[in-house]
Amino acid sequence: MTTSSHSSTQNQTSGMWGGRFTEATDSFVAEFTASVQFDQRFYRQDIAGSIAHATMLAKVGVLTEQERDDIIQGLTEIQKEIEEGRFEWRVDLEDVHMNIEARLTDRIGITGKKLHTGRSRNDQVATDIRLYVRDEIDATLQLLSKLQKGILSLADQHTATIMPGFTHLQTAQPVTFGHHLMAWFEMLFRDSERLIDCRKRVNRMPLGSAALAGTTYPIDRTYTAQLLGFDTASENSLDAVSDRDFAIEFNAAASLIMMHLSRMSEELILWTSAQFKFVNIPDRFCTGSSIMPQKKNPDVPELVRGKTGRVYGDLISLLTLMKGQPLAYNKDNQEDKEPLFDAIDTVRGSLMAFADMVPALVPNQAEMREAALRGFSTATDLADYLVKKGIAFRDAHEIVGKAVALGVQEGKDLSELKLEQLQQFSDLISADVFDKALTLEASVSARNHLGGTAPAQVQAAIQRAHQRLEQLYA
Amino acid sequence: MTTSSHSSTQNQTSGMWGGRFTEATDSFVAEFTASVQFDQRFYRQDIAGSIAHATMLAKVGVLTEQERDDIIQGLTEIQKEIEEGRFEWRVDLEDVHMNIEARLTDRIGITGKKLHTGRSRNDQVATDIRLYVRDEIDATLQLLSKLQKGILSLADQHTATIMPGFTHLQTAQPVTFGHHLMAWFEMLFRDSERLIDCRKRVNRMPLGSAALAGTTYPIDRTYTAQLLGFDTASENSLDAVSDRDFAIEFNAAASLIMMHLSRMSEELILWTSAQFKFVNIPDRFCTGSSIMPQKKNPDVPELVRGKTGRVYGDLISLLTLMKGQPLAYNKDNQEDKEPLFDAIDTVRGSLMAFADMVPALVPNQAEMREAALRGFSTATDLADYLVKKGIAFRDAHEIVGKAVALGVQEGKDLSELKLEQLQQFSDLISADVFDKALTLEASVSARNHLGGTAPAQVQAAIQRAHQRLEQLYA
Amino acid sequence: MTTSSHSSTQNQTSGMWGGRFTEATDSFVAEFTASVQFDQRFYRQDIAGSIAHATMLAKVGVLTEQERDDIIQGLTEIQKEIEEGRFEWRVDLEDVHMNIEARLTDRIGITGKKLHTGRSRNDQVATDIRLYVRDEIDATLQLLSKLQKGILSLADQHTATIMPGFTHLQTAQPVTFGHHLMAWFEMLFRDSERLIDCRKRVNRMPLGSAALAGTTYPIDRTYTAQLLGFDTASENSLDAVSDRDFAIEFNAAASLIMMHLSRMSEELILWTSAQFKFVNIPDRFCTGSSIMPQKKNPDVPELVRGKTGRVYGDLISLLTLMKGQPLAYNKDNQEDKEPLFDAIDTVRGSLMAFADMVPALVPNQAEMREAALRGFSTATDLADYLVKKGIAFRDAHEIVGKAVALGVQEGKDLSELKLEQLQQFSDLISADVFDKALTLEASVSARNHLGGTAPAQVQAAIQRAHQRLEQLYA
Amino acid sequence: MTTSSHSSTQNQTSGMWGGRFTEATDSFVAEFTASVQFDQRFYRQDIAGSIAHATMLAKVGVLTEQERDDIIQGLTEIQKEIEEGRFEWRVDLEDVHMNIEARLTDRIGITGKKLHTGRSRNDQVATDIRLYVRDEIDATLQLLSKLQKGILSLADQHTATIMPGFTHLQTAQPVTFGHHLMAWFEMLFRDSERLIDCRKRVNRMPLGSAALAGTTYPIDRTYTAQLLGFDTASENSLDAVSDRDFAIEFNAAASLIMMHLSRMSEELILWTSAQFKFVNIPDRFCTGSSIMPQKKNPDVPELVRGKTGRVYGDLISLLTLMKGQPLAYNKDNQEDKEPLFDAIDTVRGSLMAFADMVPALVPNQAEMREAALRGFSTATDLADYLVKKGIAFRDAHEIVGKAVALGVQEGKDLSELKLEQLQQFSDLISADVFDKALTLEASVSARNHLGGTAPAQVQAAIQRAHQRLEQLYA
Repeated sequence: MTTSSHSSTQNQTSGMWGGRFTEATDSFVAEFTASVQFDQRFYRQDIAGSIAHATMLAKVGVLTEQERDDIIQGLTEIQKEIEEGRFEWRVDLEDVHMNIEARLTDRIGITGKKLHTGRSRNDQVATDIRLYVRDEIDATLQLLSKLQKGILSLADQHTATIMPGFTHLQTAQPVTFGHHLMAWFEMLFRDSERLIDCRKRVNRMPLGSAALAGTTYPIDRTYTAQLLGFDTASENSLDAVSDRDFAIEFNAAASLIMMHLSRMSEELILWTSAQFKFVNIPDRFCTGSSIMPQKKNPDVPELVRGKTGRVYGDLISLLTLMKGQPLAYNKDNQEDKEPLFDAIDTVRGSLMAFADMVPALVPNQAEMREAALRGFSTATDLADYLVKKGIAFRDAHEIVGKAVALGVQEGKDLSELKLEQLQQFSDLISADVFDKALTLEASVSARNHLGGTAPAQVQAAIQRAHQRLEQLYA
Repeated sequence: MTTSSHSSTQNQTSGMWGGRFTEATDSFVAEFTASVQFDQRFYRQDIAGSIAHATMLAKVGVLTEQERDDIIQGLTEIQKEIEEGRFEWRVDLEDVHMNIEARLTDRIGITGKKLHTGRSRNDQVATDIRLYVRDEIDATLQLLSKLQKGILSLADQHTATIMPGFTHLQTAQPVTFGHHLMAWFEMLFRDSERLIDCRKRVNRMPLGSAALAGTTYPIDRTYTAQLLGFDTASENSLDAVSDRDFAIEFNAAASLIMMHLSRMSEELILWTSAQFKFVNIPDRFCTGSSIMPQKKNPDVPELVRGKTGRVYGDLISLLTLMKGQPLAYNKDNQEDKEPLFDAIDTVRGSLMAFADMVPALVPNQAEMREAALRGFSTATDLADYLVKKGIAFRDAHEIVGKAVALGVQEGKDLSELKLEQLQQFSDLISADVFDKALTLEASVSARNHLGGTAPAQVQAAIQRAHQRLEQLYA
Repeated sequence: MTTSSHSSTQNQTSGMWGGRFTEATDSFVAEFTASVQFDQRFYRQDIAGSIAHATMLAKVGVLTEQERDDIIQGLTEIQKEIEEGRFEWRVDLEDVHMNIEARLTDRIGITGKKLHTGRSRNDQVATDIRLYVRDEIDATLQLLSKLQKGILSLADQHTATIMPGFTHLQTAQPVTFGHHLMAWFEMLFRDSERLIDCRKRVNRMPLGSAALAGTTYPIDRTYTAQLLGFDTASENSLDAVSDRDFAIEFNAAASLIMMHLSRMSEELILWTSAQFKFVNIPDRFCTGSSIMPQKKNPDVPELVRGKTGRVYGDLISLLTLMKGQPLAYNKDNQEDKEPLFDAIDTVRGSLMAFADMVPALVPNQAEMREAALRGFSTATDLADYLVKKGIAFRDAHEIVGKAVALGVQEGKDLSELKLEQLQQFSDLISADVFDKALTLEASVSARNHLGGTAPAQVQAAIQRAHQRLEQLYA
Repeated sequence: MTTSSHSSTQNQTSGMWGGRFTEATDSFVAEFTASVQFDQRFYRQDIAGSIAHATMLAKVGVLTEQERDDIIQGLTEIQKEIEEGRFEWRVDLEDVHMNIEARLTDRIGITGKKLHTGRSRNDQVATDIRLYVRDEIDATLQLLSKLQKGILSLADQHTATIMPGFTHLQTAQPVTFGHHLMAWFEMLFRDSERLIDCRKRVNRMPLGSAALAGTTYPIDRTYTAQLLGFDTASENSLDAVSDRDFAIEFNAAASLIMMHLSRMSEELILWTSAQFKFVNIPDRFCTGSSIMPQKKNPDVPELVRGKTGRVYGDLISLLTLMKGQPLAYNKDNQEDKEPLFDAIDTVRGSLMAFADMVPALVPNQAEMREAALRGFSTATDLADYLVKKGIAFRDAHEIVGKAVALGVQEGKDLSELKLEQLQQFSDLISADVFDKALTLEASVSARNHLGGTAPAQVQAAIQRAHQRLEQLYA
């Protein structure tokens, strides 16, 4: 993330804190310890925070109204400079905060220096990151919602499309494709819940904690919190400047999102293989090979599966960072940003790609059905059939196991064995077995309870899902 | 976690699923794949789940009332056998479920075999773990509460005890010991919040999902969920048998708890060193050295700091486990238990030790005060003093920086410099500076706003904390 | 790993270090901080180390020959007690070292107390673990060697067995099964190399570093190192008692082993699915389902894949443990053992299972061949055919791409298209294309260079592999 | 690491592999799956690899000498374009390889298209990364060497400078500052060893493995390997294109380096605190506070300690990435680069900062000595004194423990107690105790054996260290 070459920067004692220093900062050290290369990303939040701070300072009489207006005017123009690419970021000014403050003093003179009254960079940066993460959570929730709706729409078309369900990647029982997609939906629904829970702990304002102990100015933190849309102001200044729980909690939630996407990816990669052929991913989401002319590779799911590790790594980075740190702020904390930003970007990019791709998937219903017919997928149904005729489950299981062994030997599925062949294992088997137990449709329809794979249940689950989404994002 | 020696177990085809097999399981494989060594831990939950399942099966007519009563009676006696150490766990029966079911059939005959109707080990184990984690979350919350109250009680005695506050482990500004302790409280309060949020996602019932697709029996999952105290039954059977989010979410919350304890530990280790001497830990929480007769080591905080990595590792284990798994249940998932159990045990042990130790800490107020007097801790107050006399903050900072440089040179704190010496940096400094800005008491009292270190604020924060605890655990 | 119930232990000041203490250790603390529950595992190494230490102390005159003999005799008998299960481990004696030393003093009186002269538990435990890890590396290398030879033997039977090679899990080019297996061999060969490199850094003796600074007795560390088979004595006492690099390095090497096994596992799971059917795993390595009578699950590879996360977690535990620890020994380090032991056990169990299973795999040659015929696996060969007739590779690629598109449309592989159909894309294609480019045998045989998949090359690679193994383990 | 905004790129079927595709790549997908943003970093290695490949192709007759020369000439000019900032990198060309190859064809026409004969991007990228990592290992070894020599030089000045040695951060025994620094040296020496071991496994050439199975051209891989300075060509093509062990092994070694730097950092942070004051870090390596005028913060060690987590995270990213991947190349592997680059950059930056800072550290010898006098640091020496007068060590330990308890009670160190006071615990104590056991100089000088803290031993260790460095880097 840092660059390997280190160009030199000017070598002078910092205007911000140089009073007690007898020697200028080493130029490599200045660059090594600067953060403006990556923290400029939240310039909008920094400016919004400063405007709210100035507004509060004017309210409590620390700034005049004129001073406040000058500051707001200056900051507004600086934001424009940045957004139009006219702002010159300087590494010797260390970070986004000092870059903006220095420019403000350039523009409006000594009043600019008053903005920092009653705050410190310690509480300022903590506030900026929280505002930034709050915005990113909201944007991520929107992407999740888009993907969730895409899944519902595809599932809705396939409530009765039959495919083999797997356990241990061995054919287990028939399920519907819609039911399988709804499992994906459930995973992502929990992800949204977690982000919403995390957001509560993000949305608390550290501003006013100053360096670590609070400030001697008569600040009104509740007012500033209101202006910035925070739910509440933090309760303890020492904690507020050193707490990075919310970033870790976000990265943990992000890790779960990526884990879920990695599972969907694995399935898509399997399903598009020549061996499965369950699904076709449109060409626009795939790439080919520079060497093998026939290749069409499922790049998007592969890449997303690969990116999972990246977010896990980002989580470990932050956990390691905070381990054993004494209170309050330590410079270590500057390292909180890049792992957080990387997790945010990776999750958003991956969700964006999936939200586009998933609704465009084209299931190959014939192949799915054919696969479900293989692999003795209705063996459990045969056992249940026997139980309903009075045999204890464990005994029925044994009987069917022997029938399967015969099928393996003869290369036939259960439904392809003759009635007499089946009857040699139990005389309770009669001709109705083929309709009642051994067809795919009978099998899926019989699992007709809350959470089961019967088409009617999947249909109902989709309807509930729409309502649950509405409530969740209300 | 596994044992290194592998004693052989009997070598025969399993009665549970042997029908289609032509060869007995290899004895090393049988032991390698068994889980009863560690999953017997949740026998209580397994039995409670079975009793609820049998009750539901009788309600819907799959079992007779007599069968239900026999099963409940049998299971109740088995629980007694286990708790009295009379139960023989068998590795060849693979897991806790089959051990208990086999014993049930021993005791009550063929009815025992009917218990497994309409469920599978896949949904059974998922249900058991959730019940287990739910119980452990509740127990962990109680320990957190005990520690939180211990902190409040100590803080209450020290709302006005002054110590140096640190940033970068350099003396920053004076704070009160009570204020510092309340930062610990805030960390742990968030931990409780997170566990409570996690519990919501734990408390959903997978039972009835059977192997992966639901079951053909007319089960009533809502009724079973009620019997077991679940908030709801899971929405999708494929998801329900393969979802381990709740375990990861728990381990992430546990990692944050350990991170917090590691920070408190680091501080306690520093504070009990010969260099700090801020705090004495009673002898009963310490050990000595077999070689150095003078040693009294802060073993508890050191060990807890060391255990942090263990829980981080447990989190990574589970995240890695689930990465890229296709639906539905895979044998990989058997590996979900030990990292979860280890995190639970570690967190509980660590909280137990801290809950005992923290209220017994003996602060050394004289040393703390002495340290606060060193290190120019009131320099910011001097700058604020100048700002209030009309100087812009950035300029005041520069003036004080120079005064500090003189102090460093002369080996004196600011309050030990003569008035004339101070005045050479600014003629706005007058004799009132010593009272208004340079005393520790003036410094802390001046930070008198929500979240600040002023004794009055700390007192108020403690009172709010008691109310917040009451609401949280309501 | 710790137990959740904490039985109370006797509550008295330790005889080892109680002199300066005024209060007995809390009984929960005593158990929480004890390590004998898990460090008794290296009792053999502890005793071997003590015997060598006593021998050295006698050589330099600190012990008499009689004292030395008494100690050796006593320790030898204690080892017997332990191995015969007659030794009573006591938690109140904290660890394996004090348990053995206390028993020695029981047996031989005051001379037992002299054994600890010139050493400390800090250097003693560091020595014990290194001896233990050295033994475990040697045992792991033997298992690796067994698995490597099993792979060679299977590969040797299949140097010409054709299967599809995959990239992106899409059919890429035909390869031989022997060639694929030799890729597994290469992975594991590097694992052996890494363990051998790690062993060099394990095999350095900390003993004699005492608590942290060395000892005032005239010890001869080079002599002790010789007695214990160490390559050298450590260079710096402070480093020696606090260095756990070797454990981390072992866990990193173990993580790579598990990563490799997880890749082989993934392939075995795919290959045994109904969709691939490339390989059959003998029944004795599989288990069935309690609910689905037809199931035969690849438990061993699934479980091994699942155990990967466990070892990754163990690695993170140790890295986290050591982060930011000041010199020299801290109690944190007691937490080095369990993650190390767990990684050792997991790797050994997994290798043992694979070493048995891999040579017993039964490839299904007909299915492999059939799959290789599908998926346009010889498309690259057609492009190369055109290049050899004078077309630039990028252009040939385009031509073949179009032929493949036709094949996809018609549901035919390239070799199933008619000559005229192929010629419509390039008139350089003549009848020899079917023999020279589009057969599987032509394709694999043509890749006839070092590292290529041609049967002759695979045969040669197997021969070299035998020689390389001999050199490696020499 | 990715950018959050995704500008659109041109939307057309790729010229590299478009033949079989009926739809252009989605523009977001094109950017999401491109790697040129980060893989352009190894353009030099890519060009060197291509030049060697062309040279070999000419040697075996696949290219004419003229074609080879044109290619080399073209690539040489492209390298110049890149280094002079005149090269336009195009995201639609996906990666560094296709960017350079496309430009080559621009410059030299159809011959440029022939360069890719007998190779694939799969083996090309694997070769490039290995060349890159090899260069970075060499550069990192140089930085390690610089830091190691800086430590030796500082240690050499302080072989007799006394400071307290700590265990459990409690005063343990006196050591010399030179001895402590040599512990740092030992850590870093192992890091160099590990990188050198890792380099052996990096320096093997995958080129010639082509897509996965080798190539049909008569390539001479041994010759190419020679040209590129590889020790050997890889043995198996499937393994060669999918092996990323070397990257993981590098990141594991990098994690250990950062762990060591985190430990040194922790000590420097402690030592520069107002409580320790053992060491002064020159102002040029520190920064101040924008709010607290007195602050001088140890930014470099804090930041390096913080960066530790980042590299641990990079390690986990790669381990997770490779878990469970089937052979051979999968798109996931594109994610191998950024975590590797980030670890490389972080380690290099951190070593650079330490290599500058460590030799400039200014120890405060008076403070160190004063601290060593406190804390009963010579208690062990008193016990040894008694042992030499015939008391068993465990009994001597008890006696001294009681003397220490008296000292704690009276607020005096052992050397400050009166002879009579000491004698009340043992009449074997005589007046010589103060010289022989209780002075700091006697204590350190007495630990006079290989690895001990006696000044003579430290001096000898420094001399050996110089020789070991010479051998290591020979």
